[in-house]
Amino acid sequence: MKVSDGMNYAPKGKPQPVVKPGEFVFSAVRLDHGHIYGMTNALLEAGGTLKYVYDPDEAKVAQFVKTYPQVQVARSEEEALGDRDTHMIAGAAVTSERCPLGLRAMAAGKDYFTDKAPFTTLAQLDSAKSMVAETGKKYMVYYSERLHVEGAILAGYMIEQGEIGKVIHVEGFGPHRLGKAGRPAWFFEREKYGGILCDIGSHQIEQYLHFAGEEDARVTHSRIGNYANPDYPELDDFGDCSIVGAKGTTNYFRVDWFTPDGLSTWGDGRTIILGTEGYIEIRKYVDIASGTPGGNHIYLVNGKGEKHIDATGTTGYPFFGQLILDCLNRTENAMTQAHAFKAAELCLQAQAQAMVVTK
Amino acid sequence: MKVSDGMNYAPKGKPQPVVKPGEFVFSAVRLDHGHIYGMTNALLEAGGTLKYVYDPDEAKVAQFVKTYPQVQVARSEEEALGDRDTHMIAGAAVTSERCPLGLRAMAAGKDYFTDKAPFTTLAQLDSAKSMVAETGKKYMVYYSERLHVEGAILAGYMIEQGEIGKVIHVEGFGPHRLGKAGRPAWFFEREKYGGILCDIGSHQIEQYLHFAGEEDARVTHSRIGNYANPDYPELDDFGDCSIVGAKGTTNYFRVDWFTPDGLSTWGDGRTIILGTEGYIEIRKYVDIASGTPGGNHIYLVNGKGEKHIDATGTTGYPFFGQLILDCLNRTENAMTQAHAFKAAELCLQAQAQAMVVTK
Repeated sequence: MKVSDGMNYAPKGKPQPVVKPGEFVFSAVRLDHGHIYGMTNALLEAGGTLKYVYDPDEAKVAQFVKTYPQVQVARSEEEALGDRDTHMIAGAAVTSERCPLGLRAMAAGKDYFTDKAPFTTLAQLDSAKSMVAETGKKYMVYYSERLHVEGAILAGYMIEQGEIGKVIHVEGFGPHRLGKAGRPAWFFEREKYGGILCDIGSHQIEQYLHFAGEEDARVTHSRIGNYANPDYPELDDFGDCSIVGAKGTTNYFRVDWFTPDGLSTWGDGRTIILGTEGYIEIRKYVDIASGTPGGNHIYLVNGKGEKHIDATGTTGYPFFGQLILDCLNRTENAMTQAHAFKAAELCLQAQAQAMVVTK
Repeated sequence: MKVSDGMNYAPKGKPQPVVKPGEFVFSAVRLDHGHIYGMTNALLEAGGTLKYVYDPDEAKVAQFVKTYPQVQVARSEEEALGDRDTHMIAGAAVTSERCPLGLRAMAAGKDYFTDKAPFTTLAQLDSAKSMVAETGKKYMVYYSERLHVEGAILAGYMIEQGEIGKVIHVEGFGPHRLGKAGRPAWFFEREKYGGILCDIGSHQIEQYLHFAGEEDARVTHSRIGNYANPDYPELDDFGDCSIVGAKGTTNYFRVDWFTPDGLSTWGDGRTIILGTEGYIEIRKYVDIASGTPGGNHIYLVNGKGEKHIDATGTTGYPFFGQLILDCLNRTENAMTQAHAFKAAELCLQAQAQAMVVTK
């Protein structure tokens, strides 16, 4: 896996359909972030049927159609949202526009599946909560750095099986390649992307809540900075955050845009999960200078010894099939709405209360 | 290197004497922590001449004499401190007694070299500062996790050579094996060991200040907990800390006593140094499940690519020879007094202001 930046990270897995063609129909609305391809791949592999695509930018639509020739181009957002067959609207809008789109989709009776981060303000989160309460529809989030990474999924299973005892602390490292030239203007505008802790920090918080089994938590410290990008003063190129969960577990994560040019992929993402009886380190996308290609490396150390496990090909991406069934059956097996919203809330709080460490 | 716990970590290096026999004389006073062996080895390798040993515990003295048969047993602390030939008193007392011993040594006209942490209270630090001002003697500290680890020393050189650009952030992970049965009672008494951030946290802060080139800094957040050792309620088995330097760099570190039984050494100590042009990860004592034995693994990622460097045998331990020459020439090449004290001050502050995350 050699990709130029995280924006084009769209893993393909083994098809594991949970429904027959036509039983679960989704449409793609707003293609501002390349994650829409990862979302679409995963829903298709899980058996979803792609109906419409809509984006005001014709070039983006053309690229999408080239990738998924079966898709119909909607003439307007309304056409996609108003379609009777469609169960779910999948969207990767500009971050600040994700919630308004979601509210429209839910008002139209659809479940909504958005790229992360799902919100840029707490007011948006509140309005989404109200809409969920009102309509019973789902506002689900593509937290790809866990849901679309087999190393992270297998690590979750290992924790459930007790391999490291009781989880007490989770550390996440989410460096990303900046690739300034290839980024759209909104990526650098704070109001639109929401800040680094809101944006790529949201992955980290979701992972913490999942691995630690926490349903509630509070941000105890957070910091942001712009160390090396004075040409984009609204960009945070660094952020970190400390969280304490309601059960007493702790989290620290660091996110940054400093992936060096010489790294063989877009970011050396890692997660360390410390338990009372052992720990797991996930080297998600690369095991630097190891001679072992690819990602999904799990390192497990516990009472039995030290172990390296290549998780590639072991788990697939069960979230997406579960999500389809959750939509059809009105269950919450893939992810609870409360979990998706709690991660979002914490990343907004982390961003809002962050200490600025650079001038 | 397979050792049961960090308490017995006493690396041996290649002798690189900077003085002739008898030119620099030191004595070992108080053997409460096994680090005294690492300190003694290193001073001997750098050309120091060991004269006296003193400890009230005869068994500890007997073991020391067995290891260093050339040593003379002093009948009292006064005999060792009062010796005319002696330049330096090296000590590894119970943490809370390190400063009183140092004050006595300096009052007797000797430089003092203590195991970390050098203090358990800010009042002790103040008294040591006064004594330094009054006597001109040194109060130096064995921050072994950098000074006695070739991977850390070589990483420092690589940073100085600009391999990762400007340092912006340092992360340190200092898990240690608890080995409860082999620990003395004082190890579990808060007043005596000072708390986890004071104790093993002191290494981490010293490394941060060194790698980031910071002379001043402040603790912005810290946490402690006792997750799994209710039988020792005064033990912190977990701690972490965030620091911001005066130049705007940031630090995070985590320390804990959760090294699993199956790890091949006493702790998977790591340091990650993030720069504007690359990053370095030091896997200090073990590269887990890598098939590559030993420690001192440096992983460098920058514009040129990903690189693994085995630092074993590359640098030796230059601190100790420099320290001897500093004592003889009244210079500060090994470490400034201000640096040694700043690391101590910050670890005391981190401990004092820590949020307790467990009940």
